[in-house]
Amino acid sequence: MCQLLGMNCNVPTDICFSFAGFRARGGLTDHHRDGWGIAFFEGRGVRVFLDPAPSAHSPVAELVNRYPIRSLNVIAHIRKATQGDIRLENTHPFQRELWGRYWIFAHNGNLKDFAPRLSGRFLPVGSTDSELAFCHLLDTLAARFPAGKPAPAELHAALRELAREIGSRGEFNFLLSDGDWLFAHCSSRLCYIVRRAPFAEAHLADEDLTVDFRRLTGPQDRVAVIATTPLTDNEHWAQIPPGNLVAFRDGETVTLGETATVAQDYPRRGDDRSASA
Amino acid sequence: MCQLLGMNCNVPTDICFSFAGFRARGGLTDHHRDGWGIAFFEGRGVRVFLDPAPSAHSPVAELVNRYPIRSLNVIAHIRKATQGDIRLENTHPFQRELWGRYWIFAHNGNLKDFAPRLSGRFLPVGSTDSELAFCHLLDTLAARFPAGKPAPAELHAALRELAREIGSRGEFNFLLSDGDWLFAHCSSRLCYIVRRAPFAEAHLADEDLTVDFRRLTGPQDRVAVIATTPLTDNEHWAQIPPGNLVAFRDGETVTLGETATVAQDYPRRGDDRSASA
Repeated sequence: MCQLLGMNCNVPTDICFSFAGFRARGGLTDHHRDGWGIAFFEGRGVRVFLDPAPSAHSPVAELVNRYPIRSLNVIAHIRKATQGDIRLENTHPFQRELWGRYWIFAHNGNLKDFAPRLSGRFLPVGSTDSELAFCHLLDTLAARFPAGKPAPAELHAALRELAREIGSRGEFNFLLSDGDWLFAHCSSRLCYIVRRAPFAEAHLADEDLTVDFRRLTGPQDRVAVIATTPLTDNEHWAQIPPGNLVAFRDGETVTLGETATVAQDYPRRGDDRSASA
Repeated sequence: MCQLLGMNCNVPTDICFSFAGFRARGGLTDHHRDGWGIAFFEGRGVRVFLDPAPSAHSPVAELVNRYPIRSLNVIAHIRKATQGDIRLENTHPFQRELWGRYWIFAHNGNLKDFAPRLSGRFLPVGSTDSELAFCHLLDTLAARFPAGKPAPAELHAALRELAREIGSRGEFNFLLSDGDWLFAHCSSRLCYIVRRAPFAEAHLADEDLTVDFRRLTGPQDRVAVIATTPLTDNEHWAQIPPGNLVAFRDGETVTLGETATVAQDYPRRGDDRSASA
Protein backbone atom coordinates (compact mmCIF):
# COMPACT_ATOMS: atom_id res chain seq x y z
CA MET A 1 0.00 0.00 0.00
CA CYS A 2 0.94 3.61 -0.36
CA GLN A 3 0.80 6.80 1.63
CA LEU A 4 -1.02 10.00 0.73
CA LEU A 5 -0.33 13.57 1.76
CA GLY A 6 -2.38 16.59 0.81
CA MET A 7 -2.47 20.26 1.76
CA ASN A 8 -5.12 22.89 1.12
CA CYS A 9 -4.73 26.47 2.40
CA ASN A 10 -6.14 29.97 2.22
CA VAL A 11 -2.69 31.55 1.74
CA PRO A 12 0.20 30.07 -0.25
CA THR A 13 2.04 27.84 2.21
CA ASP A 14 5.10 25.64 1.94
CA ILE A 15 4.80 21.99 2.92
CA CYS A 16 8.42 21.51 4.02
CA PHE A 17 7.59 20.50 7.60
CA SER A 18 4.94 17.90 6.73
CA PHE A 19 6.97 16.62 3.80
CA ALA A 20 10.00 16.04 6.03
CA GLY A 21 8.03 13.51 8.04
CA PHE A 22 6.19 12.09 5.07
CA ARG A 23 9.26 11.38 2.96
CA ALA A 24 10.88 9.50 5.83
CA ARG A 25 8.19 6.85 5.32
CA GLY A 26 9.61 6.21 1.87
CA GLY A 27 12.39 3.88 2.92
CA LEU A 28 13.43 5.20 6.34
CA THR A 29 10.68 4.83 8.94
CA ASP A 30 8.42 2.78 6.70
CA HIS A 31 8.65 0.50 3.68
CA HIS A 32 7.12 2.60 0.88
CA ARG A 33 10.21 2.48 -1.29
CA ASP A 34 8.75 2.20 -4.77
CA GLY A 35 8.89 5.81 -5.86
CA TRP A 36 7.19 9.00 -4.85
CA GLY A 37 5.83 12.23 -6.26
CA ILE A 38 4.48 15.62 -5.28
CA ALA A 39 2.39 18.18 -7.17
CA PHE A 40 2.20 21.88 -6.31
CA PHE A 41 -0.51 24.09 -7.78
CA GLU A 42 0.55 27.69 -8.26
CA GLY A 43 -2.30 29.67 -9.74
CA ARG A 44 -3.71 27.61 -12.60
CA GLY A 45 -0.31 26.04 -13.17
CA VAL A 46 1.00 22.91 -11.52
CA ARG A 47 4.42 21.40 -11.15
CA VAL A 48 4.87 17.75 -10.46
CA PHE A 49 8.10 16.28 -9.13
CA LEU A 50 8.34 12.54 -9.67
CA ASP A 51 11.01 10.04 -8.75
CA PRO A 52 10.86 6.26 -9.04
CA ALA A 53 13.61 6.15 -6.35
CA PRO A 54 12.73 5.93 -2.62
CA SER A 55 11.80 9.36 -1.26
CA ALA A 56 14.07 9.01 1.78
CA HIS A 57 17.14 8.93 -0.50
CA SER A 58 15.90 10.94 -3.49
CA PRO A 59 17.82 14.06 -4.60
CA VAL A 60 14.53 15.40 -5.95
CA ALA A 61 12.95 15.00 -2.50
CA GLU A 62 15.97 16.76 -1.03
CA LEU A 63 15.24 19.71 -3.33
CA VAL A 64 11.54 19.74 -2.41
CA ASN A 65 12.53 19.68 1.27
CA ARG A 66 14.87 22.62 0.94
CA TYR A 67 13.20 24.78 -1.71
CA PRO A 68 10.03 26.20 -0.16
CA ILE A 69 7.42 26.19 -2.93
CA ARG A 70 4.33 28.01 -1.67
CA SER A 71 1.05 26.60 -2.84
CA LEU A 72 -2.67 26.51 -2.04
CA ASN A 73 -3.04 22.87 -3.07
CA VAL A 74 -0.47 20.10 -2.79
CA ILE A 75 -0.81 16.36 -3.38
CA ALA A 76 2.01 13.93 -2.58
CA HIS A 77 2.31 10.15 -2.67
CA ILE A 78 4.86 7.55 -1.71
CA ARG A 79 4.42 4.18 -3.28
CA LYS A 80 4.44 0.58 -2.20
CA ALA A 81 3.67 -1.10 -5.49
CA THR A 82 0.64 -3.39 -5.65
CA GLN A 83 -0.23 -3.25 -9.36
CA GLY A 84 2.23 -2.03 -12.01
CA ASP A 85 6.04 -2.24 -12.04
CA ILE A 86 8.27 0.33 -10.37
CA ARG A 87 8.54 2.67 -13.30
CA LEU A 88 8.20 6.41 -13.80
CA GLU A 89 4.89 6.05 -15.66
CA ASN A 90 3.44 4.22 -12.63
CA THR A 91 4.56 6.89 -10.17
CA HIS A 92 1.82 9.03 -8.58
CA PRO A 93 0.49 11.69 -8.66
CA PHE A 94 -0.98 11.59 -12.17
CA GLN A 95 -1.85 14.65 -14.21
CA ARG A 96 -4.42 15.36 -16.91
CA GLU A 97 -6.18 18.45 -18.27
CA LEU A 98 -9.98 18.77 -18.26
CA TRP A 99 -12.06 21.92 -18.94
CA GLY A 100 -8.88 23.96 -19.31
CA ARG A 101 -7.63 23.07 -15.82
CA TYR A 102 -5.02 20.61 -14.66
CA TRP A 103 -6.24 17.76 -12.45
CA ILE A 104 -3.93 15.91 -10.10
CA PHE A 105 -4.71 12.51 -8.61
CA ALA A 106 -3.03 10.13 -6.18
CA HIS A 107 -4.43 6.86 -4.85
CA ASN A 108 -3.81 4.58 -1.90
CA GLY A 109 -5.40 1.18 -2.15
CA ASN A 110 -5.90 -1.73 -4.49
CA LEU A 111 -8.72 -2.25 -6.99
CA LYS A 112 -9.52 -5.75 -8.16
CA ASP A 113 -11.26 -6.85 -11.36
CA PHE A 114 -11.51 -3.21 -12.27
CA ALA A 115 -11.91 -2.78 -16.03
CA PRO A 116 -14.03 0.28 -16.78
CA ARG A 117 -14.97 1.13 -20.35
CA LEU A 118 -13.03 4.19 -21.45
CA SER A 119 -14.08 6.41 -24.35
CA GLY A 120 -10.47 7.01 -25.30
CA ARG A 121 -10.40 10.64 -24.26
CA PHE A 122 -8.34 9.82 -21.18
CA LEU A 123 -6.18 6.72 -21.40
CA PRO A 124 -3.66 5.39 -18.89
CA VAL A 125 0.00 5.59 -19.90
CA GLY A 126 1.20 3.19 -17.21
CA SER A 127 -0.24 -0.04 -15.86
CA THR A 128 -1.63 0.85 -12.42
CA ASP A 129 -5.22 0.43 -11.27
CA SER A 130 -4.82 3.98 -9.90
CA GLU A 131 -4.22 5.74 -13.20
CA LEU A 132 -7.00 3.66 -14.77
CA ALA A 133 -9.38 4.84 -12.03
CA PHE A 134 -8.30 8.45 -12.59
CA CYS A 135 -8.93 8.16 -16.34
CA HIS A 136 -12.35 6.60 -15.76
CA LEU A 137 -13.19 9.34 -13.31
CA LEU A 138 -12.26 12.17 -15.70
CA ASP A 139 -13.81 10.37 -18.67
CA THR A 140 -17.13 10.19 -16.81
CA LEU A 141 -16.96 13.82 -15.68
CA ALA A 142 -16.13 15.00 -19.22
CA ALA A 143 -19.08 13.08 -20.66
CA ARG A 144 -21.48 14.23 -17.96
CA PHE A 145 -20.49 17.90 -18.07
CA PRO A 146 -19.46 18.60 -21.68
CA ALA A 147 -20.03 22.36 -21.37
CA GLY A 148 -17.35 22.78 -18.70
CA LYS A 149 -16.76 22.53 -14.99
CA PRO A 150 -20.08 22.29 -13.14
CA ALA A 151 -21.02 24.08 -9.92
CA PRO A 152 -19.13 22.77 -6.86
CA ALA A 153 -22.10 20.88 -5.42
CA GLU A 154 -22.73 19.11 -8.74
CA LEU A 155 -19.06 18.24 -9.09
CA HIS A 156 -18.92 16.94 -5.54
CA ALA A 157 -22.04 14.81 -6.04
CA ALA A 158 -20.67 13.32 -9.26
CA LEU A 159 -17.31 12.55 -7.66
CA ARG A 160 -19.00 11.01 -4.65
CA GLU A 161 -21.03 8.71 -6.88
CA LEU A 162 -17.92 7.76 -8.86
CA ALA A 163 -15.89 7.17 -5.72
CA ARG A 164 -18.59 4.83 -4.46
CA GLU A 165 -18.75 2.97 -7.78
CA ILE A 166 -14.97 2.57 -8.11
CA GLY A 167 -14.62 1.90 -4.38
CA SER A 168 -16.84 -1.17 -4.75
CA ARG A 169 -13.83 -2.78 -6.48
CA GLY A 170 -11.49 -2.46 -3.52
CA GLU A 171 -9.63 0.02 -1.39
CA PHE A 172 -9.92 3.49 -2.89
CA ASN A 173 -8.46 6.25 -0.76
CA PHE A 174 -7.59 9.16 -3.03
CA LEU A 175 -6.71 12.84 -3.23
CA LEU A 176 -7.84 14.89 -6.24
CA SER A 177 -7.37 18.58 -7.00
CA ASP A 178 -7.86 21.07 -9.83
CA GLY A 179 -6.03 23.82 -7.97
CA ASP A 180 -9.27 25.29 -6.56
CA TRP A 181 -10.64 22.32 -4.63
CA LEU A 182 -8.97 19.43 -2.95
CA PHE A 183 -11.15 16.33 -2.63
CA ALA A 184 -10.20 13.59 -0.18
CA HIS A 185 -11.94 10.23 -0.39
CA CYS A 186 -11.56 7.76 2.44
CA SER A 187 -12.20 4.12 1.78
CA SER A 188 -10.22 2.75 4.73
CA ARG A 189 -7.61 5.17 6.10
CA LEU A 190 -7.37 8.92 5.67
CA CYS A 191 -7.22 11.66 8.29
CA TYR A 192 -6.78 15.40 8.41
CA ILE A 193 -6.09 18.37 10.60
CA VAL A 194 -7.03 22.02 10.13
CA ARG A 195 -4.50 24.37 11.64
CA ARG A 196 -5.70 27.89 12.38
CA ALA A 197 -5.20 30.56 15.06
CA PRO A 198 -4.31 30.19 17.85
CA PHE A 199 -1.40 28.23 16.37
CA ALA A 200 0.83 26.01 18.44
CA GLU A 201 3.89 23.79 18.20
CA ALA A 202 3.77 20.59 16.21
CA HIS A 203 6.12 17.63 16.50
CA LEU A 204 6.62 15.10 13.70
CA ALA A 205 5.80 11.47 14.37
CA ASP A 206 8.44 10.18 11.93
CA GLU A 207 11.36 12.46 12.78
CA ASP A 208 12.41 14.38 15.86
CA LEU A 209 11.45 17.71 14.35
CA THR A 210 9.32 20.42 15.93
CA VAL A 211 7.93 23.55 14.33
CA ASP A 212 6.32 26.51 16.07
CA PHE A 213 3.54 27.62 13.75
CA ARG A 214 3.07 30.80 15.84
CA ARG A 215 6.26 32.09 14.26
CA LEU A 216 5.37 31.17 10.70
CA THR A 217 1.73 32.13 10.35
CA GLY A 218 -0.59 35.12 10.32
CA PRO A 219 -3.82 35.24 12.37
CA GLN A 220 -6.01 34.63 9.30
CA ASP A 221 -4.02 31.66 7.97
CA ARG A 222 -5.76 28.35 7.66
CA VAL A 223 -4.06 25.16 6.55
CA ALA A 224 -5.65 21.74 6.13
CA VAL A 225 -3.27 18.79 5.99
CA ILE A 226 -4.59 15.40 4.88
CA ALA A 227 -2.59 12.20 5.33
CA THR A 228 -3.00 8.43 5.41
CA THR A 229 -1.97 8.42 9.08
CA PRO A 230 -1.21 11.39 11.37
CA LEU A 231 2.10 13.12 10.62
CA THR A 232 2.43 14.66 14.09
CA ASP A 233 2.22 13.06 17.52
CA ASN A 234 1.09 16.03 19.63
CA GLU A 235 -1.97 17.18 17.67
CA HIS A 236 -5.44 15.74 17.21
CA TRP A 237 -6.06 14.45 13.69
CA ALA A 238 -9.63 13.71 12.61
CA GLN A 239 -10.28 10.43 10.84
CA ILE A 240 -12.45 10.69 7.73
CA PRO A 241 -15.11 8.01 8.11
CA PRO A 242 -14.79 5.35 5.37
CA GLY A 243 -17.08 5.91 2.40
CA ASN A 244 -16.88 9.69 2.59
CA LEU A 245 -15.59 12.32 0.20
CA VAL A 246 -14.50 15.54 1.90
CA ALA A 247 -14.12 18.79 -0.07
CA PHE A 248 -11.47 21.25 1.09
CA ARG A 249 -11.17 24.86 0.02
CA ASP A 250 -9.28 27.78 1.57
CA GLY A 251 -7.93 25.51 4.28
CA GLU A 252 -11.17 24.10 5.62
CA THR A 253 -13.82 21.51 4.87
CA VAL A 254 -16.73 22.85 2.85
CA THR A 255 -20.33 21.72 2.96
CA LEU A 256 -21.51 21.20 -0.60
CA GLY A 257 -25.25 20.83 -1.12
CA GLU A 258 -26.99 17.82 0.27
CA THR A 259 -24.01 15.54 -0.28
CA ALA A 260 -21.95 17.05 2.49
CA THR A 261 -23.19 14.96 5.35
CA VAL A 262 -19.57 14.19 6.18
CA ALA A 263 -18.47 17.65 7.11
CA GLN A 264 -21.65 18.17 9.08
CA ASP A 265 -21.62 14.94 11.00
CA TYR A 266 -18.01 14.09 11.55
CA PRO A 267 -15.48 15.43 12.19
CA ARG A 268 -17.00 18.52 13.74
CA ARG A 269 -15.20 21.78 13.11
CA GLY A 270 -14.84 22.46 16.82
CA ASP A 271 -12.62 19.41 17.09
CA ASP A 272 -10.16 20.89 14.65
CA ARG A 273 -10.04 24.28 16.24
CA SER A 274 -9.30 22.94 19.66
CA ALA A 275 -6.91 20.35 18.21
CA SER A 276 -4.68 23.09 16.82
CA ALA A 277 -4.67 25.08 20.00
CA MET B 1 11.73 35.11 -28.04
CA CYS B 2 12.69 31.89 -26.38
CA GLN B 3 15.28 29.18 -26.69
CA LEU B 4 14.71 25.52 -27.38
CA LEU B 5 16.84 22.50 -26.51
CA GLY B 6 16.10 18.92 -27.44
CA MET B 7 17.91 15.61 -27.22
CA ASN B 8 17.13 12.28 -28.88
CA CYS B 9 19.38 9.22 -28.38
CA ASN B 10 19.68 5.51 -28.95
CA VAL B 11 20.86 4.86 -25.37
CA PRO B 12 19.65 6.69 -22.24
CA THR B 13 21.90 9.72 -21.96
CA ASP B 14 22.11 12.59 -19.51
CA ILE B 15 21.90 16.13 -20.82
CA CYS B 16 24.01 17.77 -18.08
CA PHE B 17 26.67 19.15 -20.44
CA SER B 18 24.29 20.73 -22.96
CA PHE B 19 22.00 21.96 -20.20
CA ALA B 20 24.87 23.74 -18.45
CA GLY B 21 25.35 25.97 -21.48
CA PHE B 22 21.66 26.26 -22.24
CA ARG B 23 20.60 27.38 -18.77
CA ALA B 24 23.24 30.13 -18.79
CA ARG B 25 21.14 31.81 -21.48
CA GLY B 26 18.35 32.18 -18.95
CA GLY B 27 19.63 35.33 -17.28
CA LEU B 28 23.42 34.97 -17.46
CA THR B 29 24.73 35.03 -21.06
CA ASP B 30 21.38 35.95 -22.57
CA HIS B 31 18.12 37.64 -21.58
CA HIS B 32 15.63 34.74 -21.47
CA ARG B 33 14.69 35.30 -17.84
CA ASP B 34 10.99 34.55 -17.84
CA GLY B 35 11.05 30.96 -16.62
CA TRP B 36 12.22 27.66 -17.95
CA GLY B 37 11.36 23.99 -18.03
CA ILE B 38 12.71 20.60 -19.02
CA ALA B 39 10.98 17.27 -19.70
CA PHE B 40 12.67 13.87 -19.54
CA PHE B 41 11.03 10.80 -20.99
CA GLU B 42 11.93 7.59 -19.18
CA GLY B 43 10.15 4.67 -20.82
CA ARG B 44 6.55 5.71 -21.33
CA GLY B 45 6.76 8.03 -18.34
CA VAL B 46 7.86 11.64 -18.36
CA ARG B 47 8.97 14.05 -15.70
CA VAL B 48 8.74 17.75 -16.24
CA PHE B 49 10.65 20.25 -14.12
CA LEU B 50 9.23 23.76 -14.38
CA ASP B 51 10.29 27.01 -12.78
CA PRO B 52 8.97 30.50 -13.49
CA ALA B 53 12.31 31.83 -12.10
CA PRO B 54 15.30 32.48 -14.42
CA SER B 55 17.13 29.23 -15.17
CA ALA B 56 20.55 30.71 -14.39
CA HIS B 57 19.51 31.20 -10.75
CA SER B 58 16.95 28.43 -10.30
CA PRO B 59 17.45 25.81 -7.57
CA VAL B 60 15.47 23.40 -9.75
CA ALA B 61 17.93 23.98 -12.61
CA GLU B 62 20.75 23.38 -10.15
CA LEU B 63 19.23 19.98 -9.37
CA VAL B 64 18.81 19.12 -13.05
CA ASN B 65 22.43 20.11 -13.64
CA ARG B 66 23.72 17.89 -10.85
CA TYR B 67 21.34 14.93 -10.93
CA PRO B 68 22.05 13.01 -14.13
CA ILE B 69 18.66 11.82 -15.39
CA ARG B 70 19.23 9.49 -18.34
CA SER B 71 16.68 9.73 -21.08
CA LEU B 72 16.10 8.95 -24.77
CA ASN B 73 14.08 12.11 -25.35
CA VAL B 74 14.46 15.47 -23.64
CA ILE B 75 12.81 18.81 -24.40
CA ALA B 76 13.83 22.01 -22.62
CA HIS B 77 12.84 25.64 -23.01
CA ILE B 78 13.87 28.98 -21.56
CA ARG B 79 11.41 31.76 -21.96
CA LYS B 80 11.43 35.38 -23.02
CA ALA B 81 7.74 36.16 -22.72
CA THR B 82 5.93 37.47 -25.81
CA GLN B 83 2.33 36.41 -25.09
CA GLY B 84 1.11 35.47 -21.60
CA ASP B 85 2.32 36.68 -18.20
CA ILE B 86 5.28 35.17 -16.38
CA ARG B 87 3.37 32.49 -14.54
CA LEU B 88 3.79 28.78 -13.98
CA GLU B 89 0.90 27.90 -16.29
CA ASN B 90 2.64 29.77 -19.13
CA THR B 91 5.96 27.99 -18.60
CA HIS B 92 7.04 25.51 -21.31
CA PRO B 93 7.22 22.62 -21.99
CA PHE B 94 3.54 21.70 -21.94
CA GLN B 95 2.24 18.19 -21.36
CA ARG B 96 -0.89 16.33 -22.46
CA GLU B 97 -1.88 12.70 -22.98
CA LEU B 98 -3.09 11.37 -26.34
CA TRP B 99 -3.55 7.70 -27.38
CA GLY B 100 -2.25 6.58 -23.98
CA ARG B 101 1.08 8.38 -24.41
CA TYR B 102 2.36 11.63 -22.97
CA TRP B 103 3.17 14.37 -25.45
CA ILE B 104 5.56 17.18 -24.62
CA PHE B 105 5.72 20.45 -26.55
CA ALA B 106 7.83 23.61 -26.42
CA HIS B 107 7.68 26.58 -28.81
CA ASN B 108 9.93 29.42 -29.83
CA GLY B 109 8.25 32.17 -31.79
CA ASN B 110 5.18 34.34 -31.83
CA LEU B 111 1.83 33.62 -33.47
CA LYS B 112 -0.46 36.50 -34.37
CA ASP B 113 -4.23 36.50 -34.88
CA PHE B 114 -4.14 32.82 -34.07
CA ALA B 115 -7.55 31.64 -32.86
CA PRO B 116 -8.13 28.03 -33.93
CA ARG B 117 -11.42 26.32 -33.19
CA LEU B 118 -10.93 23.75 -30.46
CA SER B 119 -13.29 20.85 -29.85
CA GLY B 120 -12.75 21.10 -26.10
CA ARG B 121 -10.82 17.87 -25.81
CA PHE B 122 -7.55 19.75 -25.32
CA LEU B 123 -7.85 23.22 -23.85
CA PRO B 124 -5.10 25.62 -22.82
CA VAL B 125 -4.70 26.23 -19.09
CA GLY B 126 -2.51 29.32 -19.51
CA SER B 127 -2.67 32.23 -21.93
CA THR B 128 0.19 31.63 -24.38
CA ASP B 129 -0.11 31.26 -28.15
CA SER B 130 2.21 28.27 -27.68
CA GLU B 131 -0.08 26.17 -25.51
CA LEU B 132 -2.99 27.09 -27.78
CA ALA B 133 -1.03 25.83 -30.79
CA PHE B 134 -0.18 22.61 -28.93
CA CYS B 135 -3.86 22.03 -28.06
CA HIS B 136 -4.92 22.69 -31.66
CA LEU B 137 -2.28 20.30 -32.89
CA LEU B 138 -3.34 17.46 -30.59
CA ASP B 139 -7.02 18.21 -31.14
CA THR B 140 -6.54 17.82 -34.90
CA LEU B 141 -4.48 14.63 -34.53
CA ALA B 142 -7.06 13.11 -32.18
CA ALA B 143 -9.89 13.86 -34.61
CA ARG B 144 -7.97 12.60 -37.62
CA PHE B 145 -6.72 9.39 -36.02
CA PRO B 146 -9.44 8.37 -33.54
CA ALA B 147 -8.33 4.72 -33.49
CA GLY B 148 -4.92 5.51 -32.07
CA LYS B 149 -1.43 6.57 -33.05
CA PRO B 150 -0.97 6.24 -36.81
CA ALA B 151 2.08 4.89 -38.61
CA PRO B 152 5.13 7.17 -38.37
CA ALA B 153 4.89 8.42 -41.98
CA GLU B 154 1.23 9.33 -41.52
CA LEU B 155 1.93 11.07 -38.24
CA HIS B 156 4.82 13.00 -39.75
CA ALA B 157 2.74 14.07 -42.76
CA ALA B 158 -0.10 15.27 -40.52
CA LEU B 159 2.28 17.19 -38.27
CA ARG B 160 4.00 18.74 -41.25
CA GLU B 161 0.69 19.96 -42.63
CA LEU B 162 -0.31 21.35 -39.21
CA ALA B 163 3.06 23.02 -38.73
CA ARG B 164 2.65 24.74 -42.09
CA GLU B 165 -0.90 25.85 -41.26
CA ILE B 166 -0.02 27.19 -37.80
CA GLY B 167 3.28 28.59 -39.10
CA SER B 168 1.36 30.82 -41.50
CA ARG B 169 0.39 32.84 -38.38
CA GLY B 170 3.94 33.70 -37.41
CA GLU B 171 7.16 32.25 -36.11
CA PHE B 172 6.67 28.62 -35.14
CA ASN B 173 9.82 26.77 -34.17
CA PHE B 174 8.87 23.85 -31.95
CA LEU B 175 9.96 20.57 -30.41
CA LEU B 176 7.42 17.80 -29.87
CA SER B 177 7.90 14.30 -28.48
CA ASP B 178 5.86 11.30 -27.36
CA GLY B 179 8.89 9.52 -25.94
CA ASP B 180 9.45 7.51 -29.14
CA TRP B 181 9.92 10.29 -31.67
CA LEU B 182 11.24 13.78 -31.37
CA PHE B 183 9.93 16.17 -34.01
CA ALA B 184 11.72 19.47 -34.65
CA HIS B 185 10.04 22.13 -36.74
CA CYS B 186 12.04 25.08 -37.96
CA SER B 187 10.25 28.24 -38.95
CA SER B 188 13.22 30.59 -38.57
CA ARG B 189 15.99 29.26 -36.31
CA LEU B 190 16.70 25.71 -35.25
CA CYS B 191 19.84 23.63 -35.67
CA TYR B 192 21.12 20.22 -34.61
CA ILE B 193 24.12 18.01 -34.32
CA VAL B 194 24.36 14.22 -34.32
CA ARG B 195 27.24 12.95 -32.20
CA ARG B 196 28.43 9.41 -32.93
CA ALA B 197 31.72 7.50 -33.05
CA PRO B 198 34.44 8.58 -33.44
CA PHE B 199 33.59 10.95 -30.59
CA ALA B 200 35.62 14.04 -29.78
CA GLU B 201 35.82 16.91 -27.34
CA ALA B 202 33.14 19.57 -27.28
CA HIS B 203 33.40 23.06 -25.81
CA LEU B 204 30.38 25.09 -24.71
CA ALA B 205 29.72 28.42 -26.39
CA ASP B 206 28.07 29.91 -23.26
CA GLU B 207 30.45 28.69 -20.55
CA ASP B 208 34.10 27.70 -20.49
CA LEU B 209 33.31 24.03 -20.14
CA THR B 210 34.75 21.17 -22.19
CA VAL B 211 33.66 17.55 -22.23
CA ASP B 212 35.47 14.63 -23.83
CA PHE B 213 32.73 12.40 -25.21
CA ARG B 214 35.29 9.64 -25.85
CA ARG B 215 35.31 8.98 -22.12
CA LEU B 216 31.54 8.99 -21.70
CA THR B 217 30.26 7.05 -24.68
CA GLY B 218 30.24 3.59 -26.20
CA PRO B 219 31.03 2.97 -29.89
CA GLN B 220 27.34 2.40 -30.76
CA ASP B 221 26.02 5.52 -29.00
CA ARG B 222 24.27 8.13 -31.06
CA VAL B 223 22.98 11.40 -29.65
CA ALA B 224 21.15 14.13 -31.54
CA VAL B 225 21.04 17.54 -29.88
CA ILE B 226 18.70 20.19 -31.26
CA ALA B 227 18.91 23.85 -30.23
CA THR B 228 17.83 27.31 -31.31
CA THR B 229 21.48 28.26 -31.83
CA PRO B 230 24.59 26.06 -31.51
CA LEU B 231 25.52 25.21 -27.93
CA THR B 232 29.17 24.45 -28.70
CA ASP B 233 31.75 26.52 -30.55
CA ASN B 234 34.05 23.77 -31.85
CA GLU B 235 31.56 21.52 -33.64
CA HIS B 236 29.57 21.84 -36.81
CA TRP B 237 25.84 22.27 -36.22
CA ALA B 238 23.46 21.82 -39.16
CA GLN B 239 20.77 24.44 -39.63
CA ILE B 240 17.31 23.03 -40.32
CA PRO B 241 16.00 24.90 -43.36
CA PRO B 242 12.95 27.02 -42.45
CA GLY B 243 9.65 25.33 -43.26
CA ASN B 244 10.89 21.84 -42.44
CA LEU B 245 9.89 19.27 -39.86
CA VAL B 246 12.66 16.83 -38.97
CA ALA B 247 11.88 13.51 -37.26
CA PHE B 248 14.49 12.10 -34.88
CA ARG B 249 14.61 8.57 -33.54
CA ASP B 250 17.42 6.62 -31.92
CA GLY B 251 19.71 9.62 -32.17
CA GLU B 252 19.43 10.33 -35.88
CA THR B 253 17.16 11.91 -38.44
CA VAL B 254 14.72 9.49 -40.02
CA THR B 255 13.28 9.58 -43.52
CA LEU B 256 9.53 9.12 -43.27
CA GLY B 257 7.69 8.38 -46.51
CA GLU B 258 7.60 11.00 -49.19
CA THR B 259 7.54 13.85 -46.67
CA ALA B 260 11.14 13.47 -45.64
CA THR B 261 12.76 15.70 -48.20
CA VAL B 262 14.53 17.49 -45.38
CA ALA B 263 16.68 14.69 -44.15
CA GLN B 264 17.53 13.74 -47.70
CA ASP B 265 18.39 17.15 -49.00
CA TYR B 266 19.88 19.05 -46.14
CA PRO B 267 21.74 18.58 -43.91
CA ARG B 268 23.45 15.49 -45.27
CA ARG B 269 24.40 12.84 -42.75
CA GLY B 270 28.05 12.91 -43.75
CA ASP B 271 28.23 16.44 -42.40
CA ASP B 272 27.26 15.27 -38.97
CA ARG B 273 29.63 12.37 -38.86
CA SER B 274 32.64 14.43 -39.79
CA ALA B 275 31.49 17.27 -37.53
CA SER B 276 31.72 15.02 -34.47
CA ALA B 277 35.16 13.74 -35.32
